Amino acid sequence: MTVDVSRRDLFDLPEGLVYLCGNSLGALPRSVADRLASVVRREWATDLVSGWNAAGWTQLSARAASRIAPLIGVDAQDVAVGDSTSVTLFKTMVAAARLLPDRRVLVVEPTTFPTDGYVAAGVARTLGLELRWCDPADPAASLDDDVAVLSLTHVDFRTGAMFDMPAVTAAAHDAGAVMLWDLCHSAGAVPVDLRAAEADFAVGCTYKYLNGGPGSPAFVWVAPQHQAVLDQPITGWWGHARPFDMTLEFEPADGVQRMVVGTPPVLALSALDAALEVFDGIAMTDLRAASLSLTDLFIEQVETRTEGFEVITPRNHGRRGSQVALRHPEAYGVIQALVARGVTGDFRTPDVARFGFAPLYVTHEDVVTAVDRLVAVLESGEHRSPAYTTRNAVT
Amino acid sequence: MTVDVSRRDLFDLPEGLVYLCGNSLGALPRSVADRLASVVRREWATDLVSGWNAAGWTQLSARAASRIAPLIGVDAQDVAVGDSTSVTLFKTMVAAARLLPDRRVLVVEPTTFPTDGYVAAGVARTLGLELRWCDPADPAASLDDDVAVLSLTHVDFRTGAMFDMPAVTAAAHDAGAVMLWDLCHSAGAVPVDLRAAEADFAVGCTYKYLNGGPGSPAFVWVAPQHQAVLDQPITGWWGHARPFDMTLEFEPADGVQRMVVGTPPVLALSALDAALEVFDGIAMTDLRAASLSLTDLFIEQVETRTEGFEVITPRNHGRRGSQVALRHPEAYGVIQALVARGVTGDFRTPDVARFGFAPLYVTHEDVVTAVDRLVAVLESGEHRSPAYTTRNAVT
Repeated sequence: MTVDVSRRDLFDLPEGLVYLCGNSLGALPRSVADRLASVVRREWATDLVSGWNAAGWTQLSARAASRIAPLIGVDAQDVAVGDSTSVTLFKTMVAAARLLPDRRVLVVEPTTFPTDGYVAAGVARTLGLELRWCDPADPAASLDDDVAVLSLTHVDFRTGAMFDMPAVTAAAHDAGAVMLWDLCHSAGAVPVDLRAAEADFAVGCTYKYLNGGPGSPAFVWVAPQHQAVLDQPITGWWGHARPFDMTLEFEPADGVQRMVVGTPPVLALSALDAALEVFDGIAMTDLRAASLSLTDLFIEQVETRTEGFEVITPRNHGRRGSQVALRHPEAYGVIQALVARGVTGDFRTPDVARFGFAPLYVTHEDVVTAVDRLVAVLESGEHRSPAYTTRNAVT
Repeated sequence: MTVDVSRRDLFDLPEGLVYLCGNSLGALPRSVADRLASVVRREWATDLVSGWNAAGWTQLSARAASRIAPLIGVDAQDVAVGDSTSVTLFKTMVAAARLLPDRRVLVVEPTTFPTDGYVAAGVARTLGLELRWCDPADPAASLDDDVAVLSLTHVDFRTGAMFDMPAVTAAAHDAGAVMLWDLCHSAGAVPVDLRAAEADFAVGCTYKYLNGGPGSPAFVWVAPQHQAVLDQPITGWWGHARPFDMTLEFEPADGVQRMVVGTPPVLALSALDAALEVFDGIAMTDLRAASLSLTDLFIEQVETRTEGFEVITPRNHGRRGSQVALRHPEAYGVIQALVARGVTGDFRTPDVARFGFAPLYVTHEDVVTAVDRLVAVLESGEHRSPAYTTRNAVT
């Protein structure tokens, strides 16, 4: 029995649009606009610099953390929010590698979202480590006693395949390595229990299933047992034990606060804090059941009503995120033609059509409508129109 | 003859408040609230993921850069905007040091804003360099042929003293080092001509005199001759030559784009872009004349109408930023009592009362009113009230 978790009335979505791209940019929670207006017109305009205390700006990261923490199975005090995902990955990978200074290898899968690999390469070069690519089908095979960090994306951005977090984490630990999970495509979409998995670090973005808005700040979680010795490279004043003492020497703050770098981005954190209210009272197990029901229905509808698509997302519920990826030689044109018919999915090079299912605002009716429109595109041949096969810079 | 640059009507400031803290957090330009509402309610809500192209989100960093560039004497194409000031300092210092890999010393002044020193220490430790503190009265004395980077804050955050940018840059070059300027307290406040000074790098925040809002993103400028070999450590996907090709290997973008790291913070960049409109048509020489006239008047009023304050900001116009710092044994209480009387300045440890003069919204009448209220505080002894001498976390 699937519990209804739909909260579409809390989102501001265009009438008639089937939005299956919340795995790229989440829809707008209605509360965000009013919150931002209040932060600007009331807090910034009238509190001015006193807003840091009077309006609670110094607490915004902690507020957002307290809303994210229950979605990923951790305590709020172990989560910090503020920099971009890529910056957060950088400082976290460095901190993770420094836990094991005698080990010289960083392991990443080649199918990860590109920035994870790019950042890992930058970290490896900066610290003088070796970057080793693993087989995503068997990351453990790349582990040995020279591996400091295994860094994997929990749900693959392209295929939607999900790692077995406890098993892979255990394999990393068996090899004596620390485990860093990128939760960009899983936080807010599938139940994540970092503590039960005994993970060491996690990083995630907030503008996909967490609906924080375009380019919203990322979060980092650090297992409590690592915090006291945590040594991250970007030692900014906001990670200092007493920033307003303005001492000459850096002294790291206690706990996860030492992962924080600069002055908090107040507008972005306020928007995120407001956006996360849509998760209030949601049980991730209910959300997960709804997600699987939606993706099951989409796969079934595509397979029974269309031809030419290869479903590359795992059928196994235990290995599926909250998206469905279809391989098709004309995937680019299909996506463009669908967009023109009011179904937003996206294309990933070279031949993948991706569809994300955010259960808070995507319904079973949406799924059927999307496939209705997909059928109409294929029957009309619209996906072969030159209007839909010329590529944009960002899709 | 001072040209009137006042644009107070473009700012949303509380009636009756004399706001002399724009050197910490700039006031709210009225255009920001409407722009943010439009970005959220129109672009994010209806363009959704297509906003990256349709709403020009990919161009926001370049738009903000094009507004900042003329204020600091550079071409827009050499400026990037996006991360926090501390993160931007980190990646820029690393890139600067990597230009001279055979040199092992990073020179910073001990009176700089703390995060500059903290970040420099983090960079030095990460790259295996030595951090050397220089005498701010004579940074050149600390230069030798082992110095890779001299990094200085153009205008001192505490005293308001300003370095002679061309002379100090020349001294760095004479020693074979590269020069990095922190413009946090000068961009938008004093004329800056990085090209004329032949500087190599600059970083600056945008929430002080540029009014971008609390925690708004920082900018970085890289001299054109360094861009082709620029090697910064945080190699995120947005600094890739073709991010949407999603290749396995990182290939840096041409020009200053390779300094960019993650997905741009759209809400923050939109607010900043709108905020910077208040500089449209302003000549920095006119703004500078107004600033000096305001700080001259404040110094003269304080010195003729009060006792017990030591002006630690240089009298010499060529060495003064856009603020006045007063040393007083009861500076903390004085600031708190002034705030209660509607004059916002701030306190910097251990005994400094700071007053910033942003000529776009601070008038000569404000200066007189501020000193009227200062006199009233001192005469009443309010600054010794326990209500005003108990310290807050952030002041």
